[in-house]
Amino acid sequence: MNTPKVIAFDVFGTVVDWHGSIRREAEAMMPGIDGAAFANAWRAGYKPAMAEVRDGQLGWTRIDDLHRKILDRILPEFGQDLPEDQRRHLNLAWHRLAPWTDAIEGLTRLKSRFTIVTLSNGNLSLLANMAKQAKLPWDLILSAEVFRHYKPDPEAYLGVASVFDVRPDEVMLVATHEDDLDAAQRCGLLTAYVHRPAEYGPQLKAIGDLTRFDRVAADFIELNSRL
Amino acid sequence: MNTPKVIAFDVFGTVVDWHGSIRREAEAMMPGIDGAAFANAWRAGYKPAMAEVRDGQLGWTRIDDLHRKILDRILPEFGQDLPEDQRRHLNLAWHRLAPWTDAIEGLTRLKSRFTIVTLSNGNLSLLANMAKQAKLPWDLILSAEVFRHYKPDPEAYLGVASVFDVRPDEVMLVATHEDDLDAAQRCGLLTAYVHRPAEYGPQLKAIGDLTRFDRVAADFIELNSRL
Repeated sequence: MNTPKVIAFDVFGTVVDWHGSIRREAEAMMPGIDGAAFANAWRAGYKPAMAEVRDGQLGWTRIDDLHRKILDRILPEFGQDLPEDQRRHLNLAWHRLAPWTDAIEGLTRLKSRFTIVTLSNGNLSLLANMAKQAKLPWDLILSAEVFRHYKPDPEAYLGVASVFDVRPDEVMLVATHEDDLDAAQRCGLLTAYVHRPAEYGPQLKAIGDLTRFDRVAADFIELNSRL
Repeated sequence: MNTPKVIAFDVFGTVVDWHGSIRREAEAMMPGIDGAAFANAWRAGYKPAMAEVRDGQLGWTRIDDLHRKILDRILPEFGQDLPEDQRRHLNLAWHRLAPWTDAIEGLTRLKSRFTIVTLSNGNLSLLANMAKQAKLPWDLILSAEVFRHYKPDPEAYLGVASVFDVRPDEVMLVATHEDDLDAAQRCGLLTAYVHRPAEYGPQLKAIGDLTRFDRVAADFIELNSRL
């Protein structure tokens, strides 16, 4: 493996704990709700919603708006009816997700050696607000919004290489999602899988054969020492 | 004036001293050259080059590539013939521009109260490399490259408001260039002029009536105290 020049990070689940953060905000706003199930239901609507954009059924739509459509659909399924201002506030919980405990230290170490960027389907303001609140030290925030293509469309992965005027194999994608890494690998990027076993809370995460990726690490600190 | 939610900064001349930085690099690489004249000649090619993109004569082209075209044209005018690797290195001097002395302290103060972003015609990698080297504390790097429109096209100014889902008059543009601020004002943005009298080195800068802008400040620290 050659040395990457740019390391791009998936964000939801890889850098930040969406499940725990959404669960906590949901339970605080809606006492008695099953926050873990609610968080997973909200997240489960995410890929089908993006698929409508990816296959052209829906014009370009930001994740903030996709999240809101899903929220409005699942609230009644959980027996909830929130007023508009509370829906808007809860929808922005995705801007306030907390990083995994190793993330800031790991990113800071990696930043001293590489250019570190996001490559997330989250919109730019979501990622900027998250970075501001959590003090995530990105060199550059890149988003599907910049490329107008959601991952796993090739345009998103190849877009990172294009922005930095480097070859695809000088970019490494770091993610805790095999499908994201597989798509990056098909575009010629380097890949690193990071274990986030609690991504869905108590719900177990199925894991395939990880040897197809260039690096596998328990967290960002271990990833740094393996590069 | 209402309070801005997002403050967007022009970069070349406003945040960083392109003249002094380019002059120093040119003189170090080409002993005996008039570095001040060389810096101003390089910069003078910039607006005409962008105009070719803005009026559609040239497809989307990044500043790195426009800078290189101008460099190749002016080198013989200054009696210079550099090999390819030196041209490439010198062209990237625009990624290494030094901030004005108040910039980091001023931006850090402003960042504690507002969301601070770039709105530059510089490409994303240029702005990211500059921020990494100079430790500029942006919440988000926005560029003409994101909007595929160079300032002063309205799409660039309105793009900032769109990214943050705010009204144009909730965004303030900070610049040391009246034409940039005028274009932002026509789009409904708030405007702040910052004096950078040495932007062109010893060459004097003509200044018009600044009372048309919402704020005028000597530097970013004064701007922070006026907001």
